[in-house]
Formats: sequence, structure tokens, C-alpha cells
Amino acid sequence: MAVRKVYGTLNSPATLKVLACLFEHDLDFELVPVNLDAGEHKKKPFVSMNPFGQVPVYEDGGIKQFESRAIIRSMSFENGKKGEELIFWDARKQAVVANWIDVEAHQFEPAALKLINEMVIKPKNGLAPDQGAVAEAEAELGNVLDVYEARLVKSKHLGSERYTIADMLHLPNLQSLMGTTAKKLIESRPHVKAWCSQILARPAWGKVLEMKRKAQAS
Amino acid sequence: MAVRKVYGTLNSPATLKVLACLFEHDLDFELVPVNLDAGEHKKKPFVSMNPFGQVPVYEDGGIKQFESRAIIRSMSFENGKKGEELIFWDARKQAVVANWIDVEAHQFEPAALKLINEMVIKPKNGLAPDQGAVAEAEAELGNVLDVYEARLVKSKHLGSERYTIADMLHLPNLQSLMGTTAKKLIESRPHVKAWCSQILARPAWGKVLEMKRKAQAS
Repeated sequence: MAVRKVYGTLNSPATLKVLACLFEHDLDFELVPVNLDAGEHKKKPFVSMNPFGQVPVYEDGGIKQFESRAIIRSMSFENGKKGEELIFWDARKQAVVANWIDVEAHQFEPAALKLINEMVIKPKNGLAPDQGAVAEAEAELGNVLDVYEARLVKSKHLGSERYTIADMLHLPNLQSLMGTTAKKLIESRPHVKAWCSQILARPAWGKVLEMKRKAQAS
Repeated sequence: MAVRKVYGTLNSPATLKVLACLFEHDLDFELVPVNLDAGEHKKKPFVSMNPFGQVPVYEDGGIKQFESRAIIRSMSFENGKKGEELIFWDARKQAVVANWIDVEAHQFEPAALKLINEMVIKPKNGLAPDQGAVAEAEAELGNVLDVYEARLVKSKHLGSERYTIADMLHLPNLQSLMGTTAKKLIESRPHVKAWCSQILARPAWGKVLEMKRKAQAS
């Protein structure tokens, strides 16, 4: 019986990040679908869980959280087991991970979402990408990935040598970008390319993709 | 001898948040001024500390961090003392605080900065505010503060009954807004008004304002 519930959708990067974290920690959960096309996230009862009307909401033992990165940080601290954790218990080591968690939020994702909007979302809705916006977003994401390349020359993962939630938070948007011509931005940077291949191959991420495949097939 | 250094400026909300956190924890530090007007944050040596070229950078014992909220979370976990901490050691209680930390980042600050840009920054640079943009930003911030009002009816502070870093992160932008006509957005919501008055009166925040006064006088 899953006590944990994720209210969200498999089309939402923030929802997918939370699912990846649940699989990483081998936690049982139930995904409760929220129909964004029908605007369910802007109506009751959803807005009584997240008054900002955004997915996902995560419910665990009566506590509801709706900011995906907060959910992921909390889940990882609560469920990390010695030797398998995606965070560090050492404050100084975790400080570096924390920094790269917030880089994903404030540098990587804004640039990535602009590109994904032009190259994935618009075409899905029958609209042509705005080529000026694409060029601008590519330049912006390129600058972020230049910083990542320099970082990954010195460290196998963003926050430390080992995989942490700072890397994990990148998965949904990296996966989307790799399905577009923007993958050249990743593949032209050797350390970013190697990091990207490696983290996309995490078994927990494979389980998220498998959920998506099953949902699309049904 | 201050081992901790903050590279930043007293005009930067992110820098002020970090200073408030240092004062809350009674930690010695040195503020190393970065001249944004001269573009020092976009040049060496600054960009070797933060390749994204933004203030502040926080240096403590060889570890450099540049995302302000990451600095604050880490500092509070490393230095919180039983009974005086701005976080919770209990994972479930901290999960709620974590949620409101990220609400400040993704809901409150974006709306607040739009208004502050129009009503504080533009006039300082001799430009007139765009009244359409002001109206739009006021509506956006009003929606966020409606959520805060409902939250603060149930809880004295955002993340819990007591003051935590989730509240502290709001200080610089609340202080700026209270110096503009946008203070009506705060004062028209009784629980937001009471919360705002109370957190702006924190002695640690008073020390930050005192630093600003001294710098302006010298």
C-alpha cells in the first residue's frame, strides 16, 4: 500500500524529477494524475494542496509539499542510507552539492525550458519555433554548459565525484534536449556529453522512462 | 580575524540575505566589496569564483559557494545551535520549511523584483516606471501575498510557528517594497502585515541595515 502520493503528470519535468528521486530511494508511491489540459491544477481540490496551482504535489504521511526541489532535498535527507545516499551528511561536502542544486534551478533550467518550449512544446501544438528565440536560448544554454564543462573537467559529477541530487535534477530537461537538434550543445562538450550519458543511464531514471512508455501505450 | 568572506555589495538583495544569516548566527565575516557599476562581477578574478558572474560569493575555509539560498541553507545547518536554529533537525518539520524556502525563490522574489525594478531601480537611474508593468507586477505579487495571508492565518511564520530561513530570505525585498507605494499590498493583508513588521524587526536584520547606513554615510 503506497502511503506516498505524487499528484502530477508525466509531461511535467518537475513531476519526473520527484519520480526519479522516489525510484532512487526505492520508495513505494502512487502517481495520481492531474489533467493539466483540463486545468485541474488551477481548480479545487488541487489548489487546496498547492495554492500556486502547479504540479507536482507530494504527500507523505500528512505532509504536503509542492516545490519539487524542496521535495527532493527533504526526501533525500530523510531516506538516504549510508553508502547509497544522494546527498552528503558532512555539511561542507553538502554545501557544494547545495550550490549546484541551485545552479540547476536558477541557471540551467530557465535556459533549457526556453529551448524546450520552442523545440518540443510548440511543434507538439502545431506551432513553428521562433528561430530568433531558439538562437537566443541556444546561446544562453551554451554559456551555462561552458561552465558545466569546466566544472566536469575537475569533478566527475556537478556536486562531487559521485552522483547526487544536483545531477539528478537535470534528468528530465536533458532527456528532452537530447531529442532535439539542441543535443549538439551537449555533444560538442566532451565532459558534459559523458556526464549526460552516464546520468541518463541511471536505473532509477530508466524506471521513470518505462512509466512514460507504458502510459503512452495504454 | 574573519575567516569567512562575502564578496558582494550592499545593493544586492542576495548579498543582504547572506549577511542577515551571518548576523543571525553571530559569525565573524569580512565583506569584500564588488563594484557592479564597474562590471567587476563579470571579470577576473571574480568569475573564477563564480563563473556565472553574480554576487555574492561566500568563502568559508576554502569552500566557495555562489548561490545565496544554498549558502544560507548550508550555513544554517552547519551553525544552528539547539534552541537558536533557523532550521529544524527533524526531517518532516524541515520539509515544510524547505517548501517555503523554494516558494520565496520561485514565487515571491520574481514578482517582488519586477516591482522593485520599476519602482526603485528605474527611478534611481532617472527613468520613469512603466505603469503597465507596475500594474502587472502588483497583480502578480498580490496573488502571491494572498497565498501568504492564508498561510499566515494558520501559522505564525511561513515554515513553522517560529522564525526560520524561509522567512529570513524575504527580508531585503520586503524592506525595499515597504519604501514604495507597493507597501499597500503588504499592509492591506493583516497577517502578512504583522509577519512583515515582526521579521523586519529582527536584531540581525537591524545589523544589516546599520551596515548599509554606515556605508552610505562614509
